Amino acid sequence: MLNIENITERFEELIDDDNISQLTEELNGYHSADLAEILAALNDENRLTCFKLIDEEKAAEMLEYSTPQIQVELLGDVDEELASRIIQKMPHDSVADVLGDMEDDESEAYLNKLPDIVSEEIRELLAYKEDTAGGIMNSAMLTVHKDMTIREALEYLRVKAEKHNIELYYLYVTDKQEHLLGVVSLRKLLTASPNTLISDIMMRDIVKLHVDDPQDTVADIFMKYQYNALPVVDPYNRLKGMVTWDDAQDIIEEETTDEILTSSGFSTSLVDEDEILLGGTMKSVRARMPWLFITLIGEFFAVNVADMFQGTLTAMPIIAIFMPLLAGLGGNIGTQSITLIVRGLSTGQITLHSAVHQIWRELRVGLIIGILFGLMVSLATWKWQHNWELGLVVGAAMCINMAMATLIGAVTPVLLKKMKIDPAVASGPVIATTIDVIGLFIYFSLVTIFLVKIL
Amino acid sequence: MLNIENITERFEELIDDDNISQLTEELNGYHSADLAEILAALNDENRLTCFKLIDEEKAAEMLEYSTPQIQVELLGDVDEELASRIIQKMPHDSVADVLGDMEDDESEAYLNKLPDIVSEEIRELLAYKEDTAGGIMNSAMLTVHKDMTIREALEYLRVKAEKHNIELYYLYVTDKQEHLLGVVSLRKLLTASPNTLISDIMMRDIVKLHVDDPQDTVADIFMKYQYNALPVVDPYNRLKGMVTWDDAQDIIEEETTDEILTSSGFSTSLVDEDEILLGGTMKSVRARMPWLFITLIGEFFAVNVADMFQGTLTAMPIIAIFMPLLAGLGGNIGTQSITLIVRGLSTGQITLHSAVHQIWRELRVGLIIGILFGLMVSLATWKWQHNWELGLVVGAAMCINMAMATLIGAVTPVLLKKMKIDPAVASGPVIATTIDVIGLFIYFSLVTIFLVKIL
Repeated sequence: MLNIENITERFEELIDDDNISQLTEELNGYHSADLAEILAALNDENRLTCFKLIDEEKAAEMLEYSTPQIQVELLGDVDEELASRIIQKMPHDSVADVLGDMEDDESEAYLNKLPDIVSEEIRELLAYKEDTAGGIMNSAMLTVHKDMTIREALEYLRVKAEKHNIELYYLYVTDKQEHLLGVVSLRKLLTASPNTLISDIMMRDIVKLHVDDPQDTVADIFMKYQYNALPVVDPYNRLKGMVTWDDAQDIIEEETTDEILTSSGFSTSLVDEDEILLGGTMKSVRARMPWLFITLIGEFFAVNVADMFQGTLTAMPIIAIFMPLLAGLGGNIGTQSITLIVRGLSTGQITLHSAVHQIWRELRVGLIIGILFGLMVSLATWKWQHNWELGLVVGAAMCINMAMATLIGAVTPVLLKKMKIDPAVASGPVIATTIDVIGLFIYFSLVTIFLVKIL
Repeated sequence: MLNIENITERFEELIDDDNISQLTEELNGYHSADLAEILAALNDENRLTCFKLIDEEKAAEMLEYSTPQIQVELLGDVDEELASRIIQKMPHDSVADVLGDMEDDESEAYLNKLPDIVSEEIRELLAYKEDTAGGIMNSAMLTVHKDMTIREALEYLRVKAEKHNIELYYLYVTDKQEHLLGVVSLRKLLTASPNTLISDIMMRDIVKLHVDDPQDTVADIFMKYQYNALPVVDPYNRLKGMVTWDDAQDIIEEETTDEILTSSGFSTSLVDEDEILLGGTMKSVRARMPWLFITLIGEFFAVNVADMFQGTLTAMPIIAIFMPLLAGLGGNIGTQSITLIVRGLSTGQITLHSAVHQIWRELRVGLIIGILFGLMVSLATWKWQHNWELGLVVGAAMCINMAMATLIGAVTPVLLKKMKIDPAVASGPVIATTIDVIGLFIYFSLVTIFLVKIL
């Protein structure tokens, strides 16, 4: 992997020395994915200077590896002629993504500069919602007719693919009304004899996406079937585009981020993941408030539980100091169980079918660790406070607490899944609070019964 | 998506009715990825019954979509003749994975049944460590000589790919000693004129993997460059195999699971992610103990802080009941900050360059939410306890606590990254404990200074 720090230093030096020819040569020696990484690490001014020196073809490729922010920034800052030349070298779906992130009048200006046939296709792509198969797909692909021979198809492809910068994965077979009839893999195309008809080698049983499929469905289908590319059709089965695996990869990454953020209590339905990560402060506040507020209410229950036992606390104030210990470890081991089950359900390694087995396993884990930690805590407390009864109660509370936490942590996501609710939602913070409330109740009850003996 | 429950019920019915011909027909009507999902949901006995009825070609495909456990189970339970026929229809890297998961004598038995040329290749694959590029790659690929013409290459490919069930993504160009010289994309191959030489169209500047590259490097390179397949070379630049994107996809998923589990305090370096999820109880206990133990020690510091203020607690036992509220919300908002920064660093959306900006943003978020929640808590406490001084102190502690938690949560992963330590390690549990300790100290200090006035 690259040492980005060294490279950016080197480039900054070359810019300061005004050694443009050397800089141009070195820049163009890098892979476009590397360039995207390097330019992201430069400041705005140096980034623009470097971008202008990259060959147009490479600049177009580089933009595809860059974040939307940088894409819009760079294309907005170079002169419009250069920007439209670069845009024309990018795949249509990427162009639609970039223009979709610009202000309307700005993107309109670019669209007007593009050849009609291209701008029309891009306008069509822009009409789909960003987070659906339609918004993700590329409309440039190769379609052939089922009555063509392999020889004809190869000839057609040779001319077409060269001219239009089309990504090649499969040939899609359509009729005159563009209905999707079948798919031919390049492998089949290359190994079949030249006189065979396309209709003889095409697969008719096709895994396909619909323009309105939301992006999590697209991600799930790619993860499951593992094709390089999938065709996208409209409600009348007319072929509209294809989604390629590199775009699917980006969505899968987004969906994973969504799952991770949701699990720790961000409301990704209110604010987009990207904006939670990189948007304004108030966006981030807004995404965090709902579950934190619910946690606040939950913790007031915990306060109430503690308040119920005020008599016990006044009679024996020492017991208060063990509250963070119990809550901390219960919360921790419970969160581990939630994380494990949510992730397992998400990757499919845990199914509702195997869930009961998993829940038992978590409970066993909680009991074993609970007994070990309970013993340690008992001994430590006894040694420290010279009170073996206190030690026993704190240790017992620790053990019950940990076992209860793993049980709640394992059961809750499974129940949510059974009720067809995303297990990542409502998990982390709320379960942790529930564990707090129940844990405190158990602890105070034990203390009250065995130590203070006022019940 | 499929309704797995309905389908499995249907199949169980057909098995009970002994309606084998209908069952066979329906089974073979599904896509192999669907079959993998359906069979995973059946019990062992029914799974085997169904598996035996699937066409061999489809059975081989289905196994590729199945978990290692199910692969080994099914191949072990059908008769050996059928098993070896199915194995011969699978790509070599998948066979190596399956055999690698079997007992040595069992896999030896299968290897002996395979044609020598195949078993030799698989033995070579088995010699690489499972979690390196060598252990992941497929050794069956198409290599051509640089002096071939396009026409010759296409002819060679037609014969070879058909016979050997080779996945087609790129042609690799090697010399007689199998040194990797270049790569030709299928697109280039199909669009170039037939008399061109391979050496004229091949890319010489190649992104490649080395047999010993660990799998997280493989995942990173695929995520960054987004190729469909990458060649794998040995230390002498001899071409040994290729890793395809679907295998990379599996690794990326594994690495993400690793990141998620590590973040919530599992030691993935001690126990493999798969075993943490699905292995024995003691494996799971072992993976959890180290960080829970460190949390235990950390929480004893929290206990000590509380103990330092025993005088305060005895003088005013009511203050103890707010401890879970403060610790719970501080821990929660802090975990949100950790999660956000760790994920951002992992996807590259946050760089060390932009980290300072992110840390400020988190602190602002913490202050804003802290002030809001502080006010709410102040008012609620005042109303409830009829003590405005107590309300003010609890509210102020809440505000400081939340701001401090976001700051610690944001700074720690960045510092770890700067020290070249995986930010996911040591994050969640330890930071939550640190926040507990500092939060308690702040709270008790405020109470002691402003309410009990004993300092």
